[in-house]
Amino acid sequence: MSNRLYFDNAATSWPKPDCVYATIDRYQREVGAAAGRGGYTAAVEAQRIVSAARRGCAKLLGARDPDRIVFTANGTDALNLAMHGILRKRDHVVTTVAEHNSVLRPLASAEEQLGVSVEFVNCDEQGYLDLKQLESTIDDSTDLVVVTHASNVTGALQPLKAIAAIVKNSRALLLVDAAQTAGHVSIDVEALGIDLLATSGHKGLLGPLGTGILYVREGIETRLNPTRQGGTGVDSQSKQQPDQMPERYEAGNLNVPAIAGLGAATEFLISEGTERIAAHEQELTKQLLTGLEAIPGVRVYGPPAGMSRVGVVSFTAEAYDPQELAAAVDAAASLQCRAGLHCAPRMHQAIGTHETGGTVRLSIGWATTPQQVEAALAVIAAVVGT
Amino acid sequence: MSNRLYFDNAATSWPKPDCVYATIDRYQREVGAAAGRGGYTAAVEAQRIVSAARRGCAKLLGARDPDRIVFTANGTDALNLAMHGILRKRDHVVTTVAEHNSVLRPLASAEEQLGVSVEFVNCDEQGYLDLKQLESTIDDSTDLVVVTHASNVTGALQPLKAIAAIVKNSRALLLVDAAQTAGHVSIDVEALGIDLLATSGHKGLLGPLGTGILYVREGIETRLNPTRQGGTGVDSQSKQQPDQMPERYEAGNLNVPAIAGLGAATEFLISEGTERIAAHEQELTKQLLTGLEAIPGVRVYGPPAGMSRVGVVSFTAEAYDPQELAAAVDAAASLQCRAGLHCAPRMHQAIGTHETGGTVRLSIGWATTPQQVEAALAVIAAVVGT
Repeated sequence: MSNRLYFDNAATSWPKPDCVYATIDRYQREVGAAAGRGGYTAAVEAQRIVSAARRGCAKLLGARDPDRIVFTANGTDALNLAMHGILRKRDHVVTTVAEHNSVLRPLASAEEQLGVSVEFVNCDEQGYLDLKQLESTIDDSTDLVVVTHASNVTGALQPLKAIAAIVKNSRALLLVDAAQTAGHVSIDVEALGIDLLATSGHKGLLGPLGTGILYVREGIETRLNPTRQGGTGVDSQSKQQPDQMPERYEAGNLNVPAIAGLGAATEFLISEGTERIAAHEQELTKQLLTGLEAIPGVRVYGPPAGMSRVGVVSFTAEAYDPQELAAAVDAAASLQCRAGLHCAPRMHQAIGTHETGGTVRLSIGWATTPQQVEAALAVIAAVVGT
Repeated sequence: MSNRLYFDNAATSWPKPDCVYATIDRYQREVGAAAGRGGYTAAVEAQRIVSAARRGCAKLLGARDPDRIVFTANGTDALNLAMHGILRKRDHVVTTVAEHNSVLRPLASAEEQLGVSVEFVNCDEQGYLDLKQLESTIDDSTDLVVVTHASNVTGALQPLKAIAAIVKNSRALLLVDAAQTAGHVSIDVEALGIDLLATSGHKGLLGPLGTGILYVREGIETRLNPTRQGGTGVDSQSKQQPDQMPERYEAGNLNVPAIAGLGAATEFLISEGTERIAAHEQELTKQLLTGLEAIPGVRVYGPPAGMSRVGVVSFTAEAYDPQELAAAVDAAASLQCRAGLHCAPRMHQAIGTHETGGTVRLSIGWATTPQQVEAALAVIAAVVGT
C-alpha cells in the first residue's frame, strides 16, 4: 500500500512520524511494565514515559500543569467523560449543528436518562456558527455549552476566542471538541479560559489510535464526576475513586505503549513547530480547494481558501453518489478518502447534503505533499469526467 | 533491562510473543487506517484485522459468535460498562471480598448514585469463596452477581461451574471478572451460561496494554445500556447509539494497533495450546510455592500447589515491610514484583494483611522459566536472610 494517496487524516493521521513507531516498539520490547503501579525499575520507567507524554500534550494545548491532562481511550471517550461527568438532572445544554455524533449521541442519552434539555445553534452554509444565536440561546439556566472547534465536514474553524467570551458572560461551562484542530491549529486553553477540551490523540497530534485527551481546568474536577472507577495505583484502601488529578479519571491500566507513541509525537510537533506544519497544511488546502473548484461538475462545500478553516474538504460531483465516487477513486489510483455523513448528520442538513448521501471528504495531514494533492486532483478529474 | 526477572504478569504480561510486536508495527506502518469507517483498501484491511482478533478472543472464551465480544480500553473499562450498563435504581448486588477495586469502586459509585445495595460473600484464608453464603445471600431481589474468577492476591481459582449453577437458580445475571484467568485457564462462557465476562487483553491473553474485552451473552444487550455513545461507522443518521452488536458498545475509534496485537496473541495462544501453557505455569507455580515455603521467615498466602489456583503468589517476610522487600529484591537482582494491597483491600482483610501493608506478589507468565524462578527464590532468600 506504499503508493496510496492517503487523504483520510481527519479520521486518523497516517503516516505517523517514524519516532512514534520506534518509541512504541521500544517500550513494548524493552519496558513493557504497567505505569503508576509498582516501584521496580521498568514500572518507574513506564511512569516516566507517561509523565513526559502528559507534559507534551499540556504544552501543545496551553495547560501549565500537566496533571490537568487526562488520558482516555479516544476522543469520544473524552467527550463522554466530560458530558456524562458534568450533566445532572434537567440541566440545560447549548450546542451546535456542526457537532459529531460523539457529542450528539451522549447528549441524546442525557436527554433520555436525565431529562436534560438540548438546544442547537445553527451554522451558515460554510459551517460557521451563528454567534448572535449562540449568545441569545445561552441564558441563566444554561449549564454547559458544547462547541466543536472545527467542523469535520466543512473544515470551518470556529472563532473560539469570541465563543469563549460569550460563554464567560454566563454561568455555563464551555466544553470544546478539538478533534479536528489539536495539532493543526494553535490552542491555548488557559488564555481562552476553556473549562473542558476533548480531543483524540491520533489525528493532528500524530499519536497512535487508542489515545484521547480531556483537559480539565483547575477546580472543574469538583463538578466532574468520574464515569469509570477502579484501580488507580493510589489510595488503594479507599472505597471511592481518589480525588487526585489525573488519577481521578484514569481508572485501570493506562495504554502505555500508545501514550509513549503520543509522547514521541508531541516531541516531534514541538521540535518541528506547529506553526510550520499549519502553514504547510494551509498551503495544500488552498491547492486542493482551487483544484477541485476547477473540475467541471464538482461542488465544494465549506469556506474557500484564505478563510478561517482546517484541511478538511468536502465535495460532491454531479450524477455521482458519494460512496461510489470514493470507491472509484480508490480503485483508479488508491486515493483513500471518506464518503457519507462523517458521523455529523445535522451538519449535512445545514449544507443540504443530508438527503443525497453526504459528501466525499479529503483531509490533509502533516505528511501530505503537493504532488499527492496534484495526483488526487488528477484522479478525481479523470473519474468525474468519464 | 534484559537481565530482569519479571514476575509482575498479573499486572501485565511481559514479554509478549514476538508476533505481537511485529503485527502492531506492521499495522502502524503499512495499514494505519481506522476500522469500520470507510470503504478504501486500507480501511477494509483494518476492519479485517479487527474481525480476526474478535474471532480469536471469541474462540478462547468459548463464544460461538464473535460479535458477542466487545473491545474496551482495558479490563476496568469492561467491568464498568457491565455494571453501569446493567444496574438500575435500588438494584441488589451480591459480590465477594476477593474483588479488585475495578469491581468495588464502580459498585460503591452505584450505591451512592443509584441507591444500589451491595452484599459481600466471604472467602476462607486461602481465598476460596464461601459457596453456602453465596447461595444464601442471593435472593429473589438480586439483580446482579459479580465474582472474580481468580483472586489477584492469593491466586485462588473459584469453582466457576458451581457458582454459575447457583446464580442460574435465581433471576440474577452473573458477571465474571476473568482478569487473572483468561488465557491462563480454560473458560467456556457458553457451556457455563455466563451472562457477562470482563477481562483485560494484556495479561494472560498476551495482547498489549490498551485492550479489554466484555463478552455479552445473546439477549443481554437489551438490558445492557451503552455507557459511552458516539460514532460507530453504522447508522450515522440515527440520534441514538445503534442496537447492532458489537457497535452498540464501541463508540469512537477502536484501538486498531492494539487489537491487531491482541489478534496475533490469540493466534499464538491457539497454536501453542492454552493447556500446554497452563501446565507450564502450574509447574512453575509449584516450584515457586515450594521454594518460598522453604525460606525461613517467609509466610506464603493462598492455596498450596496442587489446589485449584493460578500463578499469582503472595508472601510476606518477618520484619520486612512488603514495599521495602520488593525494592530490595529489585535492587539486588532486578527481581520485578509488586508490593501492597494490589487494589483488593477487602481480600487483605480476609487474609489478615491489611494492617501490615499487604503482601509481596510474584506472578508467573507464559515466558517465565524454571531458571528465573530459581533465581527469584535465591534473591529472596538472600535478602530475607540478611
